[in-house]
Amino acid sequence: MDRGLFITFEGIDGCGKTTQLNLLANYLKENGFEVVVTREPGCKGIGEKIRSLLLNSKDDVSSNCEAFLFLADRAQNIDNIVKPAVERGAIVLCDRHTDSTIAYQGYGRGIDINHLKKLNTLATGDFLPDLTLVFDIDVETSQKRVGEVKDRMESIGVDFTRKVRNGYLDIAINEPNRVKVINSKDSIENIFEQVKSLIKTKLG
Amino acid sequence: MDRGLFITFEGIDGCGKTTQLNLLANYLKENGFEVVVTREPGCKGIGEKIRSLLLNSKDDVSSNCEAFLFLADRAQNIDNIVKPAVERGAIVLCDRHTDSTIAYQGYGRGIDINHLKKLNTLATGDFLPDLTLVFDIDVETSQKRVGEVKDRMESIGVDFTRKVRNGYLDIAINEPNRVKVINSKDSIENIFEQVKSLIKTKLG
Repeated sequence: MDRGLFITFEGIDGCGKTTQLNLLANYLKENGFEVVVTREPGCKGIGEKIRSLLLNSKDDVSSNCEAFLFLADRAQNIDNIVKPAVERGAIVLCDRHTDSTIAYQGYGRGIDINHLKKLNTLATGDFLPDLTLVFDIDVETSQKRVGEVKDRMESIGVDFTRKVRNGYLDIAINEPNRVKVINSKDSIENIFEQVKSLIKTKLG
Repeated sequence: MDRGLFITFEGIDGCGKTTQLNLLANYLKENGFEVVVTREPGCKGIGEKIRSLLLNSKDDVSSNCEAFLFLADRAQNIDNIVKPAVERGAIVLCDRHTDSTIAYQGYGRGIDINHLKKLNTLATGDFLPDLTLVFDIDVETSQKRVGEVKDRMESIGVDFTRKVRNGYLDIAINEPNRVKVINSKDSIENIFEQVKSLIKTKLG
């Protein structure tokens, strides 16, 4: 193909999205595709340092400052990693992207969603994912899987996580062509079969 | 007074704005005002860490990523320092603010100025300075004063600095009520007399 694909992996913590992303990366490579794996926050270089500020900082961070930090990393990721790779025909798999901002900062923290959408547009120049997979689990399963060692974002609590999950499900209802929800309480193997079948529809 | 004042200090490197800010802070304190001093990038806490990323990072940083990092620090500064202080009646003196973004990222780096203005509005909620002092020197004087030890932003060169200076002068022409230009090749004492007389017009 000429242009590649941009696929994002979303969901609350413990949903298994990173496991599925890695399985898919290997599967696509074995089938001869160029695959680029990235994540937000924390694309290579400056992005890793922004990630560390976001996840490990003990400082008080205003909600709007937090949103701008996530978007700084996103701008870098889109400009320097995602866009050049998709343009040369690669398949880019990205662990969290725009929908995380809407779900976490919008639904979770209560920042105005239109404000966040405007910021997203300014950060990405409206370079949207071709396909977004939301790995859905209930909040209790999330809490159990994440366990005792949590980073700053994971420590926010059950009510917050419930709002975030609800946010993801709303996004999927509003954009059914781009966003597909996968029930992630199933086995890793069964979930991966669903992932592969969704990807195949995009590979045409 | 009920509401305080928000005064920003702007200009290219070596223009003497920080010296004047400190003189004014002492002068106002001696006259019984509550004074809060802050700066961008690098308000207290998370802002200092963002400043360090912006000024010391050896990583490749996209122009848009850089703009978002500056604005993350600005959002934190406005939300947690400037706004609460102005609302309780303090005089806030801020070393660099919105006009630095327009001058450096807009005029200097060539990012679309309307894009930056939109970002500024989203970061600050349109909380504008009551008075902005632009300390103007020529580019050759700037280069001489900055000397050999430069940070990442100072190392960009003469042509860039010329564009930034030009940006500041354009801003002052467009917003003559808010923005006052002070010729900063004069002595520190003479410049400070001008600063005091401009402040007094705002103190009523």
